[in-house]
Amino acid sequence: MQPVAAADITAEGGAAPSTIPGPRPLEPLGVEVPSTVPTHWYNLAADLPVPVPPHLHPGTHEPLGPEDLAPLFPMALIQQEVTTERYVEIPQTVREIYAMWRPSPLVRAHRLERALGTRARVYYKYEGVSPVGSHKPNTAVAQAYYNAVEGVMRLTTETGAGQWGASLSMACALLGMTCEVWQVRASYDSKPYRRMQMETYGGICHPSPSDLTEAGRAMLAKDPDTTGSLGMAISEAVEAAVKDPGAHYSLGSVLNHVMLHQSVIGQEVLVQLAEAGERQADVVFGCAGGGSNLGGLTFPLIGQNLREGTTTRAVACEPAACPSLTQGEYRYDHGDVAGLTPLLKMHTLGNDFVPPAIHAGGLRYHGMSPMVSHAVELGLMEAVAVEQDDAFAAGIEFARAEGLIPAPESTHAVAAAMAYARTSASDGEVVVIGLSGNGVLDLAAYSAYV
Amino acid sequence: MQPVAAADITAEGGAAPSTIPGPRPLEPLGVEVPSTVPTHWYNLAADLPVPVPPHLHPGTHEPLGPEDLAPLFPMALIQQEVTTERYVEIPQTVREIYAMWRPSPLVRAHRLERALGTRARVYYKYEGVSPVGSHKPNTAVAQAYYNAVEGVMRLTTETGAGQWGASLSMACALLGMTCEVWQVRASYDSKPYRRMQMETYGGICHPSPSDLTEAGRAMLAKDPDTTGSLGMAISEAVEAAVKDPGAHYSLGSVLNHVMLHQSVIGQEVLVQLAEAGERQADVVFGCAGGGSNLGGLTFPLIGQNLREGTTTRAVACEPAACPSLTQGEYRYDHGDVAGLTPLLKMHTLGNDFVPPAIHAGGLRYHGMSPMVSHAVELGLMEAVAVEQDDAFAAGIEFARAEGLIPAPESTHAVAAAMAYARTSASDGEVVVIGLSGNGVLDLAAYSAYV
Repeated sequence: MQPVAAADITAEGGAAPSTIPGPRPLEPLGVEVPSTVPTHWYNLAADLPVPVPPHLHPGTHEPLGPEDLAPLFPMALIQQEVTTERYVEIPQTVREIYAMWRPSPLVRAHRLERALGTRARVYYKYEGVSPVGSHKPNTAVAQAYYNAVEGVMRLTTETGAGQWGASLSMACALLGMTCEVWQVRASYDSKPYRRMQMETYGGICHPSPSDLTEAGRAMLAKDPDTTGSLGMAISEAVEAAVKDPGAHYSLGSVLNHVMLHQSVIGQEVLVQLAEAGERQADVVFGCAGGGSNLGGLTFPLIGQNLREGTTTRAVACEPAACPSLTQGEYRYDHGDVAGLTPLLKMHTLGNDFVPPAIHAGGLRYHGMSPMVSHAVELGLMEAVAVEQDDAFAAGIEFARAEGLIPAPESTHAVAAAMAYARTSASDGEVVVIGLSGNGVLDLAAYSAYV
Repeated sequence: MQPVAAADITAEGGAAPSTIPGPRPLEPLGVEVPSTVPTHWYNLAADLPVPVPPHLHPGTHEPLGPEDLAPLFPMALIQQEVTTERYVEIPQTVREIYAMWRPSPLVRAHRLERALGTRARVYYKYEGVSPVGSHKPNTAVAQAYYNAVEGVMRLTTETGAGQWGASLSMACALLGMTCEVWQVRASYDSKPYRRMQMETYGGICHPSPSDLTEAGRAMLAKDPDTTGSLGMAISEAVEAAVKDPGAHYSLGSVLNHVMLHQSVIGQEVLVQLAEAGERQADVVFGCAGGGSNLGGLTFPLIGQNLREGTTTRAVACEPAACPSLTQGEYRYDHGDVAGLTPLLKMHTLGNDFVPPAIHAGGLRYHGMSPMVSHAVELGLMEAVAVEQDDAFAAGIEFARAEGLIPAPESTHAVAAAMAYARTSASDGEVVVIGLSGNGVLDLAAYSAYV
């Protein structure tokens, strides 16, 4: 053995931060992956009594073909967007990366139960253990992987508060790719930590609108002082991808393939509840923004209801300030403000709806995942709206009982579940809360509430 | 089953954030605790060939008696400070709280190994999964528990960057206690997130010096614009505890009972390495500030060396800017600037040493845990100093390979381990890195480096 000398630890010997040497890291490494981590993603489309309505071309209003999406997405993801296969195999390289933080914990909330005085058995499924603190990497890693397999080395995306941009930046770092993120100017200026997180992973983060795209320049010409919007950032990221034959675009929620990737959450819940000796989850509460945490958490349980006759109730918990499921119309609408994206059949407040500046930035979206909307329409899922103050009050009570500070998004599920456990749950009922992330970088929001 | 109605989720029905109802939560709840979580803390003092020198009274220079510490600490902790028993049973209530995040993961760093081109097997033990993102809650929960058992409902402490204050605030929330923290004014003003974390847990955080104590008022009278110091904050917290018969003081590092509580880290490493099929850790790298992560990580392995003849090397990785082990004297010195605390035999840069304002705030201490100092003096542990730039470069390379952004403190261990794995490790050698926490709330420091 060699002595450890200070001289060994120099900038030359110590690090080359800008590049990862060696071959592109797409091959599995032979990592042992815990058996609780699923081998396949689960696709609710296979078990639905009525098919999910197709996405429509924004010009022709005809169902989208693969060629319409090819400039933006790799073929594997385009196929996943429309497949009705029940199970899609997870590439082993993706499973090995999942194993860095998966299975995420399913924790019995003993102290919260005592604080609530409930005889229900309350569990929370905690996605905050991922490196960026939320569920977003579950799909970021999968999307980056399929792009890399097709030789695409550069991904573009938009981000609001920054959780998605950080997740995709991390995934790209792990797979030796470049990530370029357009972040809504208002968040870019006011929430610097997420941008710093992207940059630490090697991601490139631009405030949007930027002068790097035609869309951005047009927006700036119209209003040089604009603070931007998610719709504008989407336009910039899409334009950048379309103009570079070596680049693709990546979306962090809403679409069917994102729901598919997030199904690892609910599949793990099924295994972990069985390990804990529970027959089924009786009620599952998930927060609802674009729908990816909610769908990932609940779809495997809804599928079990449809196939095996279990009776799990799935409850979507959305902010009262942005109530697409409880107040919106179920119709075709665009995903962006400018109306450039495909038409999606979903619950929508209208693509010109401007949500109030609530703290749960991840829930500020005018529409909803078409698969979640469809499940609600079929009566497979319920929906409830939660006021922001009630959500924070619940988040604080949860933190003081269980130690974890939930993300502002997650507090909507926490509030609904706590109210249910306190007032309505019967003895021994199994309540599961989807904790989509932690609130460490959202402490200013808590502070404003306290 | 009842429907979930929005009306159920109101501020009245939803939360009472300031109090947790029901009896004081000291009794175990019957939680199933994973067997990897130790049942006993391990005490290196039992296996040392030479006893640890006693702490001395600052006035008489005689060894401290229990009565000297009784105004500050509960008797159980005073006994733990001097015990030479090899194992101290962990109260089941504390184990149940540990089980919320323990065992912490021991992860094989496959991608880092590939990036380094090493044939060593590199693992990291990750304490960042705790609710506050570092190892500090391991002792915070234990200290709060023993105080609560003796009926002490209020704890005071000091904090620099705020990790310790947040950890003790969380522990007090879980056990129904009050926590009052004096935070160095410079950090209080510049790093608001940790204060917000304390307040979310119900902790009370004062900037130090404050006008709430005689010590603080004297300091303010002398210099109304002072930005404070850890030594001054200690004086305020100690004064507040001594003046309130219902309060005690709590310290987050340095002392023997803190090393004891942190031994859960290294004990888990032993079990987890065996589960991974490893015969022993060949080299373990831990960051060295006050010594609690380092001691907790390495003492169980050093003890195994002493009892069973394993040959694990333990390497303390300290900042070159605050090099107590590699440059300091081994002698009796005070823990605080004013010289009011007991004299501790330790490696020290002098209690008037003012460390530069490095980003790894948790490593800015003039002294070192007496047990760590003693282990180094006996040749049971090595020490190396790491420059800040090399530490950040290593932290970024680690983040891009493994996804996790290490705390600035942890990057010192990462840098030394990476340099060793790259240049000196032999084939198949088992290298373990102590990742004391994550760097999510330290992203500004990374950003300054990038």
